[in-house]
Amino acid sequence: MKDFIFEVGTKILFGEDQLKHLPKEIKKYGNSVLFCYGGGSIKKLGLYDDVVKLLEENGIAYSELSGIEPNPRVESAIDGIRIARENKVDLVLAVGGGSVIDCAKLIAAGYYVDENPWDIVVGKVKVEKALPLGTILTLAATGSEMDTDSVITNLETKQKLGWGSKHVLPKFSIMNPVYTYSVNKHHTAAGVADIMSHTMENYFSLNDGCYLVDRLAEGILKTCIKYGPVALESPEDFDARANIMWANSWAINGLLKTGKDTSWSVHAIEHELSAFYDITHGTGLAILTPNWLRHVLNEHTANKIAIFGKNVFGIEPSGDKFADANKAIDALREFFDKMGIPKGLRDLGIGEEHLEEMAELTIKHKGGPIDGFITIDVEDVLEIYKMSL
Amino acid sequence: MKDFIFEVGTKILFGEDQLKHLPKEIKKYGNSVLFCYGGGSIKKLGLYDDVVKLLEENGIAYSELSGIEPNPRVESAIDGIRIARENKVDLVLAVGGGSVIDCAKLIAAGYYVDENPWDIVVGKVKVEKALPLGTILTLAATGSEMDTDSVITNLETKQKLGWGSKHVLPKFSIMNPVYTYSVNKHHTAAGVADIMSHTMENYFSLNDGCYLVDRLAEGILKTCIKYGPVALESPEDFDARANIMWANSWAINGLLKTGKDTSWSVHAIEHELSAFYDITHGTGLAILTPNWLRHVLNEHTANKIAIFGKNVFGIEPSGDKFADANKAIDALREFFDKMGIPKGLRDLGIGEEHLEEMAELTIKHKGGPIDGFITIDVEDVLEIYKMSL
Repeated sequence: MKDFIFEVGTKILFGEDQLKHLPKEIKKYGNSVLFCYGGGSIKKLGLYDDVVKLLEENGIAYSELSGIEPNPRVESAIDGIRIARENKVDLVLAVGGGSVIDCAKLIAAGYYVDENPWDIVVGKVKVEKALPLGTILTLAATGSEMDTDSVITNLETKQKLGWGSKHVLPKFSIMNPVYTYSVNKHHTAAGVADIMSHTMENYFSLNDGCYLVDRLAEGILKTCIKYGPVALESPEDFDARANIMWANSWAINGLLKTGKDTSWSVHAIEHELSAFYDITHGTGLAILTPNWLRHVLNEHTANKIAIFGKNVFGIEPSGDKFADANKAIDALREFFDKMGIPKGLRDLGIGEEHLEEMAELTIKHKGGPIDGFITIDVEDVLEIYKMSL
Repeated sequence: MKDFIFEVGTKILFGEDQLKHLPKEIKKYGNSVLFCYGGGSIKKLGLYDDVVKLLEENGIAYSELSGIEPNPRVESAIDGIRIARENKVDLVLAVGGGSVIDCAKLIAAGYYVDENPWDIVVGKVKVEKALPLGTILTLAATGSEMDTDSVITNLETKQKLGWGSKHVLPKFSIMNPVYTYSVNKHHTAAGVADIMSHTMENYFSLNDGCYLVDRLAEGILKTCIKYGPVALESPEDFDARANIMWANSWAINGLLKTGKDTSWSVHAIEHELSAFYDITHGTGLAILTPNWLRHVLNEHTANKIAIFGKNVFGIEPSGDKFADANKAIDALREFFDKMGIPKGLRDLGIGEEHLEEMAELTIKHKGGPIDGFITIDVEDVLEIYKMSL
């Protein structure tokens, strides 16, 4: 186990009756907010009206940034920063899924920066402070409500890049599983796949001795496997939505990587896919992960994949760790089948046309070969793309 | 799953090379600390000298409170408050195990209170603010380095009572597993039992639907079961000490109770034992827990105990949930045997003399029958004591 620092002070207000605390949480920071949201699903939920009512009744001024895209663009953050400055807001309030929160994080950090906020994303400008951020989560997938990270798309440069800063960790997040009842099957499945991918990116490291966090990771994976199909079948099953929502936060808030080296290989490979094709991130991850595992299966990694099979899917060891590891990978893919996730990229209309370019960009954007569960280079990424067609 | 609020912002600096950050963490709050420690084990470790050197080199003034007892007494907190006031300290620094930290919490809260700090413990005085608290942990057991709780003993009133406040959550905790290498077998075993007991007090609730946190709890229990015996056999096994130390924080920082009703029955029963006999808390918990489980085993609880047996000890379901539950309880007791923990209270020199009085006090101090995994009253507690003799 390696040395680490863990600090995640986000106040989580979880459950059906927590929205009422919103004014009190905001007033710790001031009386004026930038209210950020996406395409209007929060209006259908009635959540928009509920938030406006609470703000108005409690004398909290608000300005709005609406229409934040599913893969949030830097232009939205630029708009948000302008509105926030014009209105001298005290807090950024993100109401929606991970995209809205990720955009709000860049607004919060960009508020204090003279440069284009894209410079923050590419690491040219260091974040020294940020506006406080609060969130109301309506989709369980990215874990952005309890972490320091954000992913922003720049269509001009054809880049979708992650960045992070401790200054943009949300101060509070209100999480009501009921808000996720109306999430459709496609996005429910993609969300569960995203949560599982975050967990597996942490889990599949070769660090010895991180026994505790690997067992915690398995608990999160088992939760997804138990409740993912329930949420598809019965979208208003509270326990299913609640367990998935809470698992979503813990998959990526940093706990699962304590003491580890992690490399997030599959995310890097997927980011090029959704930058080129604008597909749903979680769907891409679910298609790629089993193929990535199959590609990286070797003498050194087989044992860990077999342990994953035993502890997550109950596959009893046969004595042949390769056979066990392959069964584990099969079980993972079968689970994604059960969740209705397409088997291959061709099902999403993606062919061989850009694979080589994407493979090169994957490695370029990571700054060189990805040193993770095993080290992978351009040819490996290309092979994984081809396996995933 | 019930509504809950979770907020644990303690900054954890974990590993072999983190002490160097101490001055920077302190200076966020000021330049003068009350340095609290126990009977001198930190001097043997060389930690006392290391801390003093860092404080002096960085111009941080310090006054000392030493000799804090294993079951910390209210008198020590009174002394600490006086010294802290005389020196107008900015932060309380607790260096030691849970007892030192628990005492430091009462000092931090009592600093701002005119009344006797015991009034805080019994709930007569509400904590509105506290001095910031930092800790350097040297024993994995109570989890006090990352939670809001404290247990204080009053020999005059023969009470050992828990209290808590969000204001005494440590701001930072430095956790170096190497500091625990010198913990003897007795206290290592008792510490592991304490961690497991915290986990089980959260786990054995009848709340439906808290699937995720129950799987996380099982991960913590498996960690204790794997590494407890390793730490006894090889006290300087870093991974064993590190996993136990990190598990210790997560057993009790609030995550495992999210969405649940918990009642901490076994802790209530044990507190009377250590109030009357000054035994090691973890040893008492380990003796009591299997007997408590056997006593509360019934039609409603058998299934959960059998799941515990399957997921923690690998006991395959036989079709008879009572048989499976009994096997699980046997396995738990066998594990404590393996850890060298006495089987019964008589081994600690405790007989029948005070059992009735202690049973009555258990229920009295809880303010009535304990409404937990099952509801227990005076006769139940007495029966559990008798089973534990």
